[in-house]
Amino acid sequence: MAESILVTGGAGYIGSHTVLQLLLSGFRVVVVDNLNNSAAVAIKRVSELAGEFGKNLAFQQIDLRDKAALNKLFDLTHFDAVIHFAGLKAVGESVQKPLLYYNNNLIGTISLLEVMAAHRCMKLVFSSSATVYGCPKEVPCREEFPLSALNPYGRTKIIIEEICRDIHCADSDWKIILLRYFNPVGAHSSGYIGDDPHGVPNNLMPFVQQVAVGRRPALTVYGNDYSTKDGTGVRDYIHVVDLADGHVSALKKLFEGSNIGCEAYNLGTGKGTTVLEMVAAFESVSGKKVPLVMAGRRPGDAEILYASTAKAEKELKWKAKYSIEEMCRDQWNWASKNPYGYGSPDSSD
Amino acid sequence: MAESILVTGGAGYIGSHTVLQLLLSGFRVVVVDNLNNSAAVAIKRVSELAGEFGKNLAFQQIDLRDKAALNKLFDLTHFDAVIHFAGLKAVGESVQKPLLYYNNNLIGTISLLEVMAAHRCMKLVFSSSATVYGCPKEVPCREEFPLSALNPYGRTKIIIEEICRDIHCADSDWKIILLRYFNPVGAHSSGYIGDDPHGVPNNLMPFVQQVAVGRRPALTVYGNDYSTKDGTGVRDYIHVVDLADGHVSALKKLFEGSNIGCEAYNLGTGKGTTVLEMVAAFESVSGKKVPLVMAGRRPGDAEILYASTAKAEKELKWKAKYSIEEMCRDQWNWASKNPYGYGSPDSSD
Repeated sequence: MAESILVTGGAGYIGSHTVLQLLLSGFRVVVVDNLNNSAAVAIKRVSELAGEFGKNLAFQQIDLRDKAALNKLFDLTHFDAVIHFAGLKAVGESVQKPLLYYNNNLIGTISLLEVMAAHRCMKLVFSSSATVYGCPKEVPCREEFPLSALNPYGRTKIIIEEICRDIHCADSDWKIILLRYFNPVGAHSSGYIGDDPHGVPNNLMPFVQQVAVGRRPALTVYGNDYSTKDGTGVRDYIHVVDLADGHVSALKKLFEGSNIGCEAYNLGTGKGTTVLEMVAAFESVSGKKVPLVMAGRRPGDAEILYASTAKAEKELKWKAKYSIEEMCRDQWNWASKNPYGYGSPDSSD
Repeated sequence: MAESILVTGGAGYIGSHTVLQLLLSGFRVVVVDNLNNSAAVAIKRVSELAGEFGKNLAFQQIDLRDKAALNKLFDLTHFDAVIHFAGLKAVGESVQKPLLYYNNNLIGTISLLEVMAAHRCMKLVFSSSATVYGCPKEVPCREEFPLSALNPYGRTKIIIEEICRDIHCADSDWKIILLRYFNPVGAHSSGYIGDDPHGVPNNLMPFVQQVAVGRRPALTVYGNDYSTKDGTGVRDYIHVVDLADGHVSALKKLFEGSNIGCEAYNLGTGKGTTVLEMVAAFESVSGKKVPLVMAGRRPGDAEILYASTAKAEKELKWKAKYSIEEMCRDQWNWASKNPYGYGSPDSSD
């Protein structure tokens, strides 16, 4: 019998791609999502993309803070593990509305962990972020670096990592993998699922994509006087399907019965790419020109951030496969097929 | 018209002493407390001790996580400020049951802050702790020292401090004072209110007191090989009435209309006292012998911890007045009058 996995936030960008890879790997998946920042249609499309495995997918619209609903779900369904994506993720919004972030991200997680503990479901993969490295003193970022946050969003990630370490210390039946994502981009090669942020995108590629399809006039580049090859910031972009596969590897590690406790792993490629290199790659695959507006540095932005991938390669037996060109190709494929994401032009901002 | 103050956790040890000082200073006070770790009788005694001011005290049994009840209270009552004591505080228990602590302390606080914001009640005094200094590299501890936590209890204090700084950054109408308590001991000089911990006491003086009244056979001293005058750990003990007065000073600062934002202040005496000195002082005032059992150091215990009091003296115009002898005298007065705290012998552990 295949293992049954609960995926919170499974209708979102990384969640939906991960659910697909889980189904294709033979897992049974129940998605819970409050759909506050995601679309139910993503789940439908994942099910279709999964073909015969689509029958192993179920969806429940539940907010994690609704502990009674979550308890009921766990009463009715046995879960072998949980992958916890659900949470708000916009840095700027978190600075404006910190209580919204602490409420959503912390209360949702505490509720989930309590319900898991009550049902003795003690295997967890948590969506952390490279943002927990703050502005690191050196690169590549290694998992043992000190953690620091520059905004409430980042603080919720660090706090949840700490909570995970504490619950494992209190009860070693907890087996927890914290995955620190670098910069996920791209989409499934079908162009059928992809990133569909509400409002003004916070991240580079959704913004680039919206410029390319004519939804926005130009891309604002924050800082072109960094000590990098072209002056723009360097990040570690990773194809979302690679990222999704990283979750499958993490789950397998949890099920392997090895002596894992609570461990953090970077999910990145280990390669740094500048903003201008990324834009050039996107222009090349899309044939679209992306007009740029140069602006000053944003406070709290690191100059260069990329992952050490050694720990994930060694212990999770996982390594990113896709190139920058493939990321841009798949991003453009999704964008050109779905210029308004999952919505209609009328429903866009 | 006197200002109206909501005091969460006002039936607890520090809370009840603070409520009394607030009433005597002319404030109107509403206490909310879930009574999970405190006694309603404390509120009754505070009211009696306050004499004619007792009429300005009201009590509501509410758990802060019950946001609907809290909202209703704020709908019905205008509060000029909140003093937020409510929270679990046992270090050892927090290591055993981290989710209990994150749930109680974080969810309770987030709920309170949201209800305050919704009612534009934006003045807050928060009960932080010297535990946020972790094991500091030097003493006295100054407010600008880096923060670190050694257990989930301490982490909840740091996290709530961070949330407070974030909400003030997002909306400068928030005026917040974080009070970092050193080691509160003693009781009101009447012996009518005092510390009444459930279960095995976590702190030195309640334990000493229970040995003195015959409830426990001996005091365990954790570590007598520290680099201190007698080998035992050094702490900054502060009379609970001094601590309570520090809250009145903090409130006055908030109401002064000065340009305070979100500021932390130590509440301590600035003087270090060893465990053996404290025991000797208690034996002297009580005439009771306190048998000792020497044990090893506890992991995470700092060697020497005492406060720099300069910032609180300068900006809050507050300074502790009571000596170690007075702390022990009042502790013993409370203990001898209430050998089983607020409960009967039958209800004790």
